[in-house]
Amino acid sequence: MEPYRLTASEVLSKVKGGSLTVEAYAQSLLSRIQERDATVKAWAYLDPEQVLAQAKQLDQIPPEKRGPLHGVSVAVKDVIHTKDMPTQYNSAIYEGFAAGVDAGCIQILRNAGALLLGKTTTTEFAATTVGPKTCNPHDPSRTPGGSSSGSGAAVGDFQAAVGLGTQTGGSTIRPGSFNGIYAMKPTWNSITREGLKIYSLLFDTLGLYARSVEDLDLLANVFAVADDESPDNNSPSFEVKGAKFAMLKTMVWSNAGPGTIAAMEKAAGLLRQHGAEVEEIELPPNFDEAPQWHRTVLHSEGRVSFLPDYQTDKDKLDGFLTGHVDNEHKITRRQQLAAWDGLATLRPKIDEIAGRYAAIVTPSVPDEAPLGQKSTGSACFNSIWTAFHTPVVNVPGFQGEHGMPIGLSLVGPRYEDRRLLRVAKAVGSVFEKEGGWTRQL
Amino acid sequence: MEPYRLTASEVLSKVKGGSLTVEAYAQSLLSRIQERDATVKAWAYLDPEQVLAQAKQLDQIPPEKRGPLHGVSVAVKDVIHTKDMPTQYNSAIYEGFAAGVDAGCIQILRNAGALLLGKTTTTEFAATTVGPKTCNPHDPSRTPGGSSSGSGAAVGDFQAAVGLGTQTGGSTIRPGSFNGIYAMKPTWNSITREGLKIYSLLFDTLGLYARSVEDLDLLANVFAVADDESPDNNSPSFEVKGAKFAMLKTMVWSNAGPGTIAAMEKAAGLLRQHGAEVEEIELPPNFDEAPQWHRTVLHSEGRVSFLPDYQTDKDKLDGFLTGHVDNEHKITRRQQLAAWDGLATLRPKIDEIAGRYAAIVTPSVPDEAPLGQKSTGSACFNSIWTAFHTPVVNVPGFQGEHGMPIGLSLVGPRYEDRRLLRVAKAVGSVFEKEGGWTRQL
Repeated sequence: MEPYRLTASEVLSKVKGGSLTVEAYAQSLLSRIQERDATVKAWAYLDPEQVLAQAKQLDQIPPEKRGPLHGVSVAVKDVIHTKDMPTQYNSAIYEGFAAGVDAGCIQILRNAGALLLGKTTTTEFAATTVGPKTCNPHDPSRTPGGSSSGSGAAVGDFQAAVGLGTQTGGSTIRPGSFNGIYAMKPTWNSITREGLKIYSLLFDTLGLYARSVEDLDLLANVFAVADDESPDNNSPSFEVKGAKFAMLKTMVWSNAGPGTIAAMEKAAGLLRQHGAEVEEIELPPNFDEAPQWHRTVLHSEGRVSFLPDYQTDKDKLDGFLTGHVDNEHKITRRQQLAAWDGLATLRPKIDEIAGRYAAIVTPSVPDEAPLGQKSTGSACFNSIWTAFHTPVVNVPGFQGEHGMPIGLSLVGPRYEDRRLLRVAKAVGSVFEKEGGWTRQL
Repeated sequence: MEPYRLTASEVLSKVKGGSLTVEAYAQSLLSRIQERDATVKAWAYLDPEQVLAQAKQLDQIPPEKRGPLHGVSVAVKDVIHTKDMPTQYNSAIYEGFAAGVDAGCIQILRNAGALLLGKTTTTEFAATTVGPKTCNPHDPSRTPGGSSSGSGAAVGDFQAAVGLGTQTGGSTIRPGSFNGIYAMKPTWNSITREGLKIYSLLFDTLGLYARSVEDLDLLANVFAVADDESPDNNSPSFEVKGAKFAMLKTMVWSNAGPGTIAAMEKAAGLLRQHGAEVEEIELPPNFDEAPQWHRTVLHSEGRVSFLPDYQTDKDKLDGFLTGHVDNEHKITRRQQLAAWDGLATLRPKIDEIAGRYAAIVTPSVPDEAPLGQKSTGSACFNSIWTAFHTPVVNVPGFQGEHGMPIGLSLVGPRYEDRRLLRVAKAVGSVFEKEGGWTRQL
């Protein structure tokens, strides 16, 4: 197998075993990128020489000093500061801008020995749904989703083993589903957001991409994501058989298209076939306002976050964002507080509901990736979970009417991220084998 | 009067009237700083030539293009990124570090034409209570407080008209009291925190210093801090007479020393003498856990925020902060969530209570500034308000047993910042005239 196809865990094992150097791995990735970049266009910045120099440096590190991600290739969303690469937020205001300092998560990855390939495309400030140039690797006539467009596409297309995204609405989970990969939005503020451009303090969350749950687990280790009772290597693995799952269509189910409707049905059937108990649940009526509260907070916090850029160069800001600063929906402080406080009251409630199950299974997207690059699709199925701060893992395995991948979200209570990953591993193994979608790339 | 003694509002008026250039104003400030710096030591970075170059540039701007803070001098706490000055966080890890990008609030100040003097001292990462070298201008044998030590001292000593601080516990309000100046902690996230080093996402708040409420109002305008019904220049001014105030000792009253006890008594008496109704109130019992919840959130969020620096250079981090990363108090996720959610339930409750009064009057500090530079004093009277996200204004006017200034906090409901400033103006005029403390500098 070409090294670029390896998962992070496989890379670690081969480099450790001496059958692969980081340089050879980097060369393989760069060839893959060279071959595919004209089609997928996942990168906002990538300098092959810089990547090779980094790889050679990593190869120089003596084995006993190597970090837990030694040589693992990472695609970094271009709203995350990197000291040796530009950070341009897909904003005309920040063309050519370089922050000169690493974000906290980048510091952690560098300390762990990761191979930082480059910066991946995003929608403007990770805040609009207007797509960058990036195409879905499974069908270039379709969007890879957004706002973490490039990281989702790069990991989906074997151009990087893992990737960093962010999520304020559905910016990590949606591209996860559209690109047929695993995506994780951890519990809010369980990984530092230092050096990530701010849209909403209450919602913005670093997101993780990988092609296996083992790889998400590796990243969660490095980022010190920990439950009260984190399972370790000696813990018995989670079994679908005998577990109890909730299927949740949510208050925005009317947005589900045939692909997602079929995926939810198939998922319930597969879980039952594998011996799980599956219960269809609904959220209590006091959850109905959550989507509107999410929007209210987003616009109110965006009003604050984009003021400096608005003042500096309003003409270069998307109208959606100037609308936030202008408070175009005339959101009052009273409404803003009602949204903040209302969502806060729902968080322990959803923890309690999710805590009754191995996971809540719920749509990641309305359907397979839509045609075109202009719109990155809808975050309607993601925004409530972002607002609730719960961990979410997109599990691929299903497909839409045009053969494009569709994933489903597993949701757990806040700070049960590690337990949720174990559930995702077992569930993912079922969905990937029997869900109906096969990766063609 | 020497120009350095002017308030921001006075500077604006003189520069507009043509009787003062920004350059002459800058020269006056630099003389003051030169005279006093060996005693006060408020600055972590200040380059007189850079200040003068900036001042000359401002003087070149034609009158019709001048911003609302044209020429106003600002002291910037050294945890706030500035593109043309170092940002060192009082951390050995970041010695000589320059972010190369302006924080959002600095962008806004530059757009408004402010004269950025330099960076002011802070405790390490604005997160410990170990003082920097800075001395209290009113008595150099005492602390100016912290963590916004330098900004508080600089504004108190007429080395800058206004200053920027931050507050996570009591880092803005405490130095405000110790230095005898007005200090404002606005409603959480009403001013962008882009480019401020993160300690706690839920608590960190940009703070403002000035020697008059008019100046705080100027800053609030520039930062677009707005209530639902923001008073404007045509609104009738707030009158103490006939207004109703709450005096609140809080659950940590046992920490109050003779200076603060006397200030609270005197304040109640003065307000009554001026025709206000004054009611002594207590918080309901469900508020008792708030101080502990504040600590729990602080330590839990610090665990996340300081992980990158801990990994990079643990030996250069204060033990208080490595303790956060090591979770030395063994705070569980369950406890962390109880603190997050518990505080969230109290926020609308405190809004409701504060909404019954013109303001809640409550201590800013246990007493006057303590002796020495090692400890910057206690934030015990501030932390609950930071946790509640409410606006707080420190109003000076009282004094301790050693003649040092003591202020009191006025607290209002979230997003009634502008109304609270009007109350502070009327109350401040009473406290400053009749509270007993007179500025000797």
